[in-house]
Amino acid sequence: MAEADQSAEVQDVDVVVLGLGNGGEGILTHLAGSGLTVVGIEQHLAGGECPFYACVPTKMIRHEASQPQPDWARVARRIREEAAHDWDDTEIVENLRATGAEIVRGTGWFTGSRTVEVTAHPDDDAPVRSFRARRAVVLGVGAESIIPEFEGAEEIGVWTHRDITTAEALPQRLAVVGGAVIACELSQALARFGVEVTMLVRSTLMSGEEPAVGEHLLEVLRSEGVDVRLETEVSSAVRQEDGSLSIRLSSGETLEADELLAATGRKPRIDVETDEYCRVLQDSEPSDWLYAVGDLTGHGDFTHVAVREGEVAARMILATGAGAGSGSGADAGAASGSAAGAGADAAEARAAVEPVAVHAVPRVTFTSPEIAGVGLTAAAARKQAEDQPDDTRWDVVSVTKDLNENARGWIDEAHGNITLVADRRTGLLLGASLIGPGAGEIVGALTVAVHQRMTVQELSRVMWAYPTLHRVISDAIGELDLS
Amino acid sequence: MAEADQSAEVQDVDVVVLGLGNGGEGILTHLAGSGLTVVGIEQHLAGGECPFYACVPTKMIRHEASQPQPDWARVARRIREEAAHDWDDTEIVENLRATGAEIVRGTGWFTGSRTVEVTAHPDDDAPVRSFRARRAVVLGVGAESIIPEFEGAEEIGVWTHRDITTAEALPQRLAVVGGAVIACELSQALARFGVEVTMLVRSTLMSGEEPAVGEHLLEVLRSEGVDVRLETEVSSAVRQEDGSLSIRLSSGETLEADELLAATGRKPRIDVETDEYCRVLQDSEPSDWLYAVGDLTGHGDFTHVAVREGEVAARMILATGAGAGSGSGADAGAASGSAAGAGADAAEARAAVEPVAVHAVPRVTFTSPEIAGVGLTAAAARKQAEDQPDDTRWDVVSVTKDLNENARGWIDEAHGNITLVADRRTGLLLGASLIGPGAGEIVGALTVAVHQRMTVQELSRVMWAYPTLHRVISDAIGELDLS
Repeated sequence: MAEADQSAEVQDVDVVVLGLGNGGEGILTHLAGSGLTVVGIEQHLAGGECPFYACVPTKMIRHEASQPQPDWARVARRIREEAAHDWDDTEIVENLRATGAEIVRGTGWFTGSRTVEVTAHPDDDAPVRSFRARRAVVLGVGAESIIPEFEGAEEIGVWTHRDITTAEALPQRLAVVGGAVIACELSQALARFGVEVTMLVRSTLMSGEEPAVGEHLLEVLRSEGVDVRLETEVSSAVRQEDGSLSIRLSSGETLEADELLAATGRKPRIDVETDEYCRVLQDSEPSDWLYAVGDLTGHGDFTHVAVREGEVAARMILATGAGAGSGSGADAGAASGSAAGAGADAAEARAAVEPVAVHAVPRVTFTSPEIAGVGLTAAAARKQAEDQPDDTRWDVVSVTKDLNENARGWIDEAHGNITLVADRRTGLLLGASLIGPGAGEIVGALTVAVHQRMTVQELSRVMWAYPTLHRVISDAIGELDLS
Repeated sequence: MAEADQSAEVQDVDVVVLGLGNGGEGILTHLAGSGLTVVGIEQHLAGGECPFYACVPTKMIRHEASQPQPDWARVARRIREEAAHDWDDTEIVENLRATGAEIVRGTGWFTGSRTVEVTAHPDDDAPVRSFRARRAVVLGVGAESIIPEFEGAEEIGVWTHRDITTAEALPQRLAVVGGAVIACELSQALARFGVEVTMLVRSTLMSGEEPAVGEHLLEVLRSEGVDVRLETEVSSAVRQEDGSLSIRLSSGETLEADELLAATGRKPRIDVETDEYCRVLQDSEPSDWLYAVGDLTGHGDFTHVAVREGEVAARMILATGAGAGSGSGADAGAASGSAAGAGADAAEARAAVEPVAVHAVPRVTFTSPEIAGVGLTAAAARKQAEDQPDDTRWDVVSVTKDLNENARGWIDEAHGNITLVADRRTGLLLGASLIGPGAGEIVGALTVAVHQRMTVQELSRVMWAYPTLHRVISDAIGELDLS
């Protein structure tokens, strides 16, 4: 009891899942009842960023910010009680244990191929554990905030989104470094709570989307009193005696603020490359036992991607056992238990698994109005086309259309725009971006269209209910130059 | 000048279009530049109900009703000036003339196969005209309001939606007869302008949609002060000396009101049956020259259907001339001008025209929250299945899911529900209905899915952005019993 054995005995299991965010959770859920022995390892909170610090709390903040009298105390309480349960994952862990998996708290790392060792939390006296995975190891350890590098960054105590979503009270003056999703969502919402927000943006707002999106959002944020400074970086910052920050900008100006929020992106905690079956590529070849899901895969740092990846990876793991007696292969419709060679059966079952539709990942920024997109922007499509063979290379065309030119947009005095991106040669719809009321819901139609690899010609034959805002899709198609 | 020749000389043209609503307009637009001689005939207002009395004015009313202080005078002015231009179609007629078509005002009727005679407006001294259509006659004369039959209906002067959308002032107390789209939209909106609205509904609200939709709307309307009386009909009505109405109900009760609005549906002005290429069926065979578009076809009384039908009928008309020198057949990609038999070319060109996707007609009711649907309800699917052969008969399953169980619905405290309808045997998604915030935009995704004849298995692999309301689609799929 007193002395934990440092060289733990290796325990054989079928599947080890490292990290229990949305992707890892999905693996356990989909493997429930398969008969496989599964171990899930989590070093912080099972459930991941989404319910505790990210999607859910920020959308609660947005919802409160849209009320006539936004009240931070009310939303802080709601986050703590309804979303994060005091940042306690007991209920999630119980649900995961109900799948039959063993849940181990601690930090895991490889001590050999397929062998993972787990050291417990420092404040825990649990022994070191060691697991060897017969069938698969799944990496789902997620990403973490990038802290911008400037003089004084460490000393002043830079805030991340976690400091906002766990704050009992808000700073009066907030400098937000960044111009992408988290920076835009939080800057707008916090300004509605009365915070004096200054955005320090290296290039432009929402630079990963079509330019028309960022231009429209810039107008909106400025009209709501957010001080947006484009092409601006932080040179240095220092906390003064009165507790406030003095922030030196690349423009030479000095900005006073109470806190500095770093919202300059996130980086995966492990560098891996995966295919659309979530198999980790080792020397460009997909591994037959190592998988990654969630923010590690590079298919998009989104809950909806992690959830789908968890499903696909689980189906691949199940298919690997087809013919060996324990495969279920629901998605694949793979027959199991055949007397024929297990290897051939498994290959067939794996081939029947439908991959993650990495070409049709939607993204929504929950500003007001919302920003949404799916697939590729025109710039991203052109970049991708550069590497394509001459005879099949996309001839990328795009069109941007104002929402106000749409009947409903005009009636409702709605503002915003949509951009469609297509390949002129085949008519294939490559992507779409939009900003405007309901953009996050309108993108659903475009998500199905891109997912189904529809051409704009096919899409032009869809009847869209009149007068809805999403009819702007057909308005835009009408102006797309495919000749 | 004085004496119009009553037996007008017959003028040969290529195409005669009777009725210039959304469908008829589309024919003219799509035939522009084809070299065909086209005559368009309209007895009231070119443009049809939509801009002058229906979609656009009612959505302006809805928009005004959503403002903090709804002002009828303001919206009445907006309708008159921005939508209806004082109920003057000069601009629309000019645009249609710019297509090269001749526009004739008056009432047309057949005086022989392919021959249409037009008498001018009674207050017009234009001569009677007569046209013989070499290639096609298109019927697009639309539908009209059904006036319910009860004692006194004629004497009291029943209102239709046209009386609302052209009203300078609103009655204080309004009895609305009906429980479908127009009745629900106007009842809710007018109550927000302070009108005391009593709905007299024969069965239930929105009885053409899934039951869960009408049940939810009933709660909403009652909570907003609309007096909704289900299973109630009007027995008789009389206008009293003070100008008010005394309305006797089937319940035996008497209702006092200032006006009675009939919103009990619309009926086509001509009875025809058409196929999905807009060809009128004559003895169950599709005509090779007679087409119908818009509210006549029975494919759905919607602007978006009429617009698509105008396009399809125009392409069919163009294809009919393929090989004869004047076909263009853009949609069909049909080559023209071949020296081979014109008949064979035309048949090929017609076969390449994509039909109206009658299985995927969306519908939106612009109440608050919105109601939307596409394809079939469970009841409609079961009825259709009765006539299907045993071996391919749909095994209809459906699931209803509360919006509040969806992450975003919970965060935003949004209420409503969605119902998905599928064939258990094939997994084919047959339809969907929903009520809730943004339903009219969410239905876009379902419209594409039904249009593409996706199975729910395919649809379950689509990644929907988290946390949007339309993710309720995947929540519902997860509970659909397909085993």
